[in-house]
Amino acid sequence: MVASPMEKAEILVEALPYIKEFYGKKVVIKYGGAAMTDCELKDKVMQDIVLMKYVGMHPIVVHGGGPEISGMLKRLGLGTEFIDGLRVTDAETMEIVEMVLVGKVNKEIVAGIEASGGKAIGISGKDGGLIKAGPIDPSGKLGFVGEVRSVNPQIIETVIENGYIPVIAPIGMDARKQSYNINADLAAAAIAVAVKADKLVLLTDVPGLLRDPADPESLISVLKVSEVETYIREGVIAGGMLPKVKCCVEAVTGGVGRTHIIDGRVPHAILLEIFTNQGIGTMVINE
Amino acid sequence: MVASPMEKAEILVEALPYIKEFYGKKVVIKYGGAAMTDCELKDKVMQDIVLMKYVGMHPIVVHGGGPEISGMLKRLGLGTEFIDGLRVTDAETMEIVEMVLVGKVNKEIVAGIEASGGKAIGISGKDGGLIKAGPIDPSGKLGFVGEVRSVNPQIIETVIENGYIPVIAPIGMDARKQSYNINADLAAAAIAVAVKADKLVLLTDVPGLLRDPADPESLISVLKVSEVETYIREGVIAGGMLPKVKCCVEAVTGGVGRTHIIDGRVPHAILLEIFTNQGIGTMVINE
Amino acid sequence: MVASPMEKAEILVEALPYIKEFYGKKVVIKYGGAAMTDCELKDKVMQDIVLMKYVGMHPIVVHGGGPEISGMLKRLGLGTEFIDGLRVTDAETMEIVEMVLVGKVNKEIVAGIEASGGKAIGISGKDGGLIKAGPIDPSGKLGFVGEVRSVNPQIIETVIENGYIPVIAPIGMDARKQSYNINADLAAAAIAVAVKADKLVLLTDVPGLLRDPADPESLISVLKVSEVETYIREGVIAGGMLPKVKCCVEAVTGGVGRTHIIDGRVPHAILLEIFTNQGIGTMVINE
Amino acid sequence: MVASPMEKAEILVEALPYIKEFYGKKVVIKYGGAAMTDCELKDKVMQDIVLMKYVGMHPIVVHGGGPEISGMLKRLGLGTEFIDGLRVTDAETMEIVEMVLVGKVNKEIVAGIEASGGKAIGISGKDGGLIKAGPIDPSGKLGFVGEVRSVNPQIIETVIENGYIPVIAPIGMDARKQSYNINADLAAAAIAVAVKADKLVLLTDVPGLLRDPADPESLISVLKVSEVETYIREGVIAGGMLPKVKCCVEAVTGGVGRTHIIDGRVPHAILLEIFTNQGIGTMVINE
Amino acid sequence: MVASPMEKAEILVEALPYIKEFYGKKVVIKYGGAAMTDCELKDKVMQDIVLMKYVGMHPIVVHGGGPEISGMLKRLGLGTEFIDGLRVTDAETMEIVEMVLVGKVNKEIVAGIEASGGKAIGISGKDGGLIKAGPIDPSGKLGFVGEVRSVNPQIIETVIENGYIPVIAPIGMDARKQSYNINADLAAAAIAVAVKADKLVLLTDVPGLLRDPADPESLISVLKVSEVETYIREGVIAGGMLPKVKCCVEAVTGGVGRTHIIDGRVPHAILLEIFTNQGIGTMVINE
Amino acid sequence: MVASPMEKAEILVEALPYIKEFYGKKVVIKYGGAAMTDCELKDKVMQDIVLMKYVGMHPIVVHGGGPEISGMLKRLGLGTEFIDGLRVTDAETMEIVEMVLVGKVNKEIVAGIEASGGKAIGISGKDGGLIKAGPIDPSGKLGFVGEVRSVNPQIIETVIENGYIPVIAPIGMDARKQSYNINADLAAAAIAVAVKADKLVLLTDVPGLLRDPADPESLISVLKVSEVETYIREGVIAGGMLPKVKCCVEAVTGGVGRTHIIDGRVPHAILLEIFTNQGIGTMVINE
Repeated sequence: MVASPMEKAEILVEALPYIKEFYGKKVVIKYGGAAMTDCELKDKVMQDIVLMKYVGMHPIVVHGGGPEISGMLKRLGLGTEFIDGLRVTDAETMEIVEMVLVGKVNKEIVAGIEASGGKAIGISGKDGGLIKAGPIDPSGKLGFVGEVRSVNPQIIETVIENGYIPVIAPIGMDARKQSYNINADLAAAAIAVAVKADKLVLLTDVPGLLRDPADPESLISVLKVSEVETYIREGVIAGGMLPKVKCCVEAVTGGVGRTHIIDGRVPHAILLEIFTNQGIGTMVINE
Repeated sequence: MVASPMEKAEILVEALPYIKEFYGKKVVIKYGGAAMTDCELKDKVMQDIVLMKYVGMHPIVVHGGGPEISGMLKRLGLGTEFIDGLRVTDAETMEIVEMVLVGKVNKEIVAGIEASGGKAIGISGKDGGLIKAGPIDPSGKLGFVGEVRSVNPQIIETVIENGYIPVIAPIGMDARKQSYNINADLAAAAIAVAVKADKLVLLTDVPGLLRDPADPESLISVLKVSEVETYIREGVIAGGMLPKVKCCVEAVTGGVGRTHIIDGRVPHAILLEIFTNQGIGTMVINE
Repeated sequence: MVASPMEKAEILVEALPYIKEFYGKKVVIKYGGAAMTDCELKDKVMQDIVLMKYVGMHPIVVHGGGPEISGMLKRLGLGTEFIDGLRVTDAETMEIVEMVLVGKVNKEIVAGIEASGGKAIGISGKDGGLIKAGPIDPSGKLGFVGEVRSVNPQIIETVIENGYIPVIAPIGMDARKQSYNINADLAAAAIAVAVKADKLVLLTDVPGLLRDPADPESLISVLKVSEVETYIREGVIAGGMLPKVKCCVEAVTGGVGRTHIIDGRVPHAILLEIFTNQGIGTMVINE
Repeated sequence: MVASPMEKAEILVEALPYIKEFYGKKVVIKYGGAAMTDCELKDKVMQDIVLMKYVGMHPIVVHGGGPEISGMLKRLGLGTEFIDGLRVTDAETMEIVEMVLVGKVNKEIVAGIEASGGKAIGISGKDGGLIKAGPIDPSGKLGFVGEVRSVNPQIIETVIENGYIPVIAPIGMDARKQSYNINADLAAAAIAVAVKADKLVLLTDVPGLLRDPADPESLISVLKVSEVETYIREGVIAGGMLPKVKCCVEAVTGGVGRTHIIDGRVPHAILLEIFTNQGIGTMVINE
Repeated sequence: MVASPMEKAEILVEALPYIKEFYGKKVVIKYGGAAMTDCELKDKVMQDIVLMKYVGMHPIVVHGGGPEISGMLKRLGLGTEFIDGLRVTDAETMEIVEMVLVGKVNKEIVAGIEASGGKAIGISGKDGGLIKAGPIDPSGKLGFVGEVRSVNPQIIETVIENGYIPVIAPIGMDARKQSYNINADLAAAAIAVAVKADKLVLLTDVPGLLRDPADPESLISVLKVSEVETYIREGVIAGGMLPKVKCCVEAVTGGVGRTHIIDGRVPHAILLEIFTNQGIGTMVINE
Repeated sequence: MVASPMEKAEILVEALPYIKEFYGKKVVIKYGGAAMTDCELKDKVMQDIVLMKYVGMHPIVVHGGGPEISGMLKRLGLGTEFIDGLRVTDAETMEIVEMVLVGKVNKEIVAGIEASGGKAIGISGKDGGLIKAGPIDPSGKLGFVGEVRSVNPQIIETVIENGYIPVIAPIGMDARKQSYNINADLAAAAIAVAVKADKLVLLTDVPGLLRDPADPESLISVLKVSEVETYIREGVIAGGMLPKVKCCVEAVTGGVGRTHIIDGRVPHAILLEIFTNQGIGTMVINE
């Protein structure tokens, strides 16, 4: 399709109600999966985020980085063990995790946003005391896999108010300066609650919550918190969707307006969610 | 054409460089002609203006109102005499001109902007001492047809900084509280200079400056100030285009970045001018 | 009397306690009646308002315009029908009402204030979404005679904080951009409540509430809200005083400090009310 | 004369042009002489100053205190020697001068302003490093009679911006914490220059500069800087008027708008100077 | 001992936790006793106060001045009578008290702070209406010995926010401009409560509260409000300590974080209290 | 030596003049060498920096990270080639350099500052478009070894004004998002010029510039820009000192007040430089 200039103008104008609705609102975006590894998708995500900022929203990016981490560990000849989907993180692994997330993935995103015309600051949970963390597993088996103990949103407010887009690597720190590797979904949810975000968007590699994983047509568009228990029992919410839904529930019950699990493989998925009436993926609401 | 959501997102993103370029910039729009009488066009202009505001520009609207004035004069049984295209304006006519411009046309635009989701304040050149004026013709034959003597842009700054779109009726006042009827193009140019606008856009009922008025293909896309003299001598700039070009020249030589004579009959003409690379109509530049 | 310079200085100093008392306070003035038609009185009102602003108060002017409207309707050969003192307002009449109030009366007041050395902005209830209105009479018999549904005082705050005197034409608008003609007393009362005014002053053509309308000596200086019912029953509050008293009651019970019905035919009536101990006219208080 | 309320209102309104003219302007007032010893005059000066503040000016008071100082010295049995009209000030005398000026006279003025409804802060040239001083007479014969070496107006700006009236005792300090007794006229002139005052008013016990001291009718209303030399040669400017005129010359040539030598024995002399067209006393201008 | 530069650096660094703890906090210091009469101690107090300001605290100084007052009264041949440790203050005495406190002692402290590199403003309770006072003894026997009726902390906030250290002479004023002589401890306590200070420090000439006045080793380091009654009954809190402890109790129960009675004869006593872990003197806490 | 509390207080007070001198000033610290590898020294540097912030300075940290980079490259089996002391940096090496500097070294410093009680934000030259860079060697032999093309100090100002200490990894970016490895000394000098720093401090592993490298007593305390040429010719400035001195020259001629080459192996070297009269190391001044 080639739209004429006038059709393009018409489309810009159609976005007005959404622009108005989200003016000045904070939107936390968990960025990961295919949208992060596919170059073209990556560019589009950057554009989406910069556009959001220019039309008056405050996007806050929290990113993962699994594949890059695994790659580097492999190059260093370090094995990786997973327990319940969580990477066992000893001291040496933690060092590499932090280096890759903060020194590589984070700065690539910052560079991407700057290249798309935005202003970004990449930080980790260590900067400004953003994320206080501790071990997720008290037994110690998981090593430095962390959970968020508290979030100090001051640094995010500062960054936002001064016109920058914060890009956050989900590294936490305890009182003894020990780093922790935190799941990006969980970090995004905790940050969304702490900054009183209006929206939390999780970019995933699935179309959303499917009643039948084999049938993309079986998408559940709206998921109420009150239905979650049942769906879990029925096995509809299972596997990788379980932690994602839990993040969403934590966020909406913590005061975040709406949360969305959307398909990051769809180009401009974020804009589609925000600027169209029907949205995409699964929206989790506090009912 | 029906664009898919994804195509729409793509189009939004295409606007990014233009949004960035004009972020925080002031754009004075002379609103008049068909774009003001045709209901559908009118709605689109309102949307364009509100969109501009939401994506960070500062649109400033200056409007005319000829047809409405003539209509009311006729209803009142008052004749209208034109000398050189200027309406001879005696005291009684002036009263009606002001009433119609300020009390009707201006507020309709304000209502239109509010209905499209923007916040507007309608003012005349009397408010906040905005336009000091005097008679354009010292002989007095034209009555209260005025020319701008000075512009105090403070009220416009106040309105803009507080998030409102100023809508200005081109009425001026002298030291004795006498009202003057000022040509909207001239008022727009003077205001653009006073507020140090980056752009002045004149909405007209022609495609721009045509080398051959009968041939829409003969559009002169870029007109340098240095060429104006020649074009006038050659009769290319003539008739109604003469004052419009003069306004543009006055504005660009007064410090306004760029000025445009565009076709208000084209839907979303303003957005087309701002958000596309080629622009539309004739651009007058200070070279 | 010709006061010596020293006597004048003495009088200035006498005003100090009142200046101090009202420093930074908002005073809504309903401007209408003789004070608006008599040229000399008009000038004095303008001076009073400008003086108030310079000594630190925040006057907010709400004006009527009955006689001007009737005059214009007559010139256009449009009849006027009144039901219960309210002008039946069809679409054509509404257009004229708005034009005259906003385009003529409002701007004359603005010009008057500027001529007296003040800075004013004239707005209608349409500007900045100030007055949301609907039909006062659901039966439709009265046409577009409106009542205030809500007031958004933000635009007034903006105007005041930036050093301007707001002059407001009592036109409201509904969600479909339909204009409504609102009684200026009612508009003034609603605005006074919305801006949390300290004082509402209604300029009328009577000395205040008289126990015996024939006897100017029978002025009731202070009227308690609790006495209103009885006075209505006794016929003391009747005719044109009924809606005025009701406005005052609405205002004081809505949180406005004090409300006054004063005689606009007295030169400098507003200053007399504010700067003298005894005040003038009838004060309605919330007791 | 007893003015009616309406006459009073009229007089208030007459002040408008002067209020407007001096809005936001700084006026340094040297307060001394009869206006400081006569109780009734004192009250009137306080009222004048408070009124000035309320109508938007920024009065800055610099005071003397000769009689009070002499009184205290006498009570302590300390003699006083004058050389060329300057009090020889040894260490013991300096201690008393400072105590009386700062601890008594200054605070009485502050209390008077507060009692008249204003907010005042009494400071000496020591506070905030306001006045750096040194001995006026290098020979040391005069002791701690000081001259202003530099003025740091920051503290005055702070006091003014926060709504207070600064009341300044003319004590200076050198780098070794030594106090100096500075002539109040000189201190006022130096402060007026430092704060870029629009007006300097010296309250004296004479009607102004008289061509013939014996004839109050011989007042010179306007004195140009260029005429001063001649008048001194002719003996018109002589005695106590010599230092006062020099102060004025220093101030106007230093950038102060206008300076006035007025008769503090006239009630409300300050208001008369500011709020009447003809003014009173002698105005020194930079021509 | 001569510390090497490196040892000095180490000591600076040791202060960090205390600097951090008190950053932005208000500390009211009652300055009096030996620390005010001994020249060397005086210099050290000034340095301590300036250092506090530079490292981010907001010291507020309230001072006494007994010996200076007595000296001046003696020079003037005025006798002094004490009732229950309070100086009977007739009108003549009051005049001298105020002159000495405000005009001499206060300004010496201001000069001292400026000489140590700080910026100070010396005020009395009259300035900015800081201290409203009345007679402490209704019978009138004590004359103008005052008690604090109310404190308006606005002037202190202004002074602090603008980077100055307020130095306050404990003089109060009633509605009739009558001055009162207020005990500096009481004034300090009232001010500490009014400004919501985090600390009140009373500089005295004793090591603190001693269980046995003859034994400096018997210092009570921490005194709970709940223990005060008992200690009074036991005679441990007696004599001059009684009013000091009462001041502290009033302050901590009024919301001041902690209060301290410390030995002003110890050089840098204030810094010792703030920058060392053990502190010095007696701390009164609200338990 | 064990200093008594009182001696400690005395030492704090000695720092006052230096605290005052540097209040509100920006100090860029190039952090590297032994001070970064020795644990104890590291802690002391962190304390020094936090103390500077608390006493009102604005420290800005720019760090290197050579040993950590070499270590990681070795672990990955990547060789390192140096040409003229510059690490040849191919794409793979660049990736590791950035990861280590930004993801490891930078965050360790941030964590250290937070642990010492400060608030820090770690950024690289990519964040907020801080450092625009290009290849230092146009021939391409050095790969992505970069030189600073321009510095946009806005992000540093934002970070500083909001109370954080910026910690900067010397990575630059060109318009195509390519990262460059910039020498930390050069980056620090360029940043110092861009932020108009008052001081640039280079922490090194030598005592300063020595006339005779073998003799630590031959320290040149003050080096004038005008002497540099001669010293280079004489071989006094040579080897590793050459680039360091050039950085200093670039900084002081670019407007930085003073620059210092100091010995980071000395504990609290930064404090010694700032808080002692003699300073340490070599100061380069613009003479």
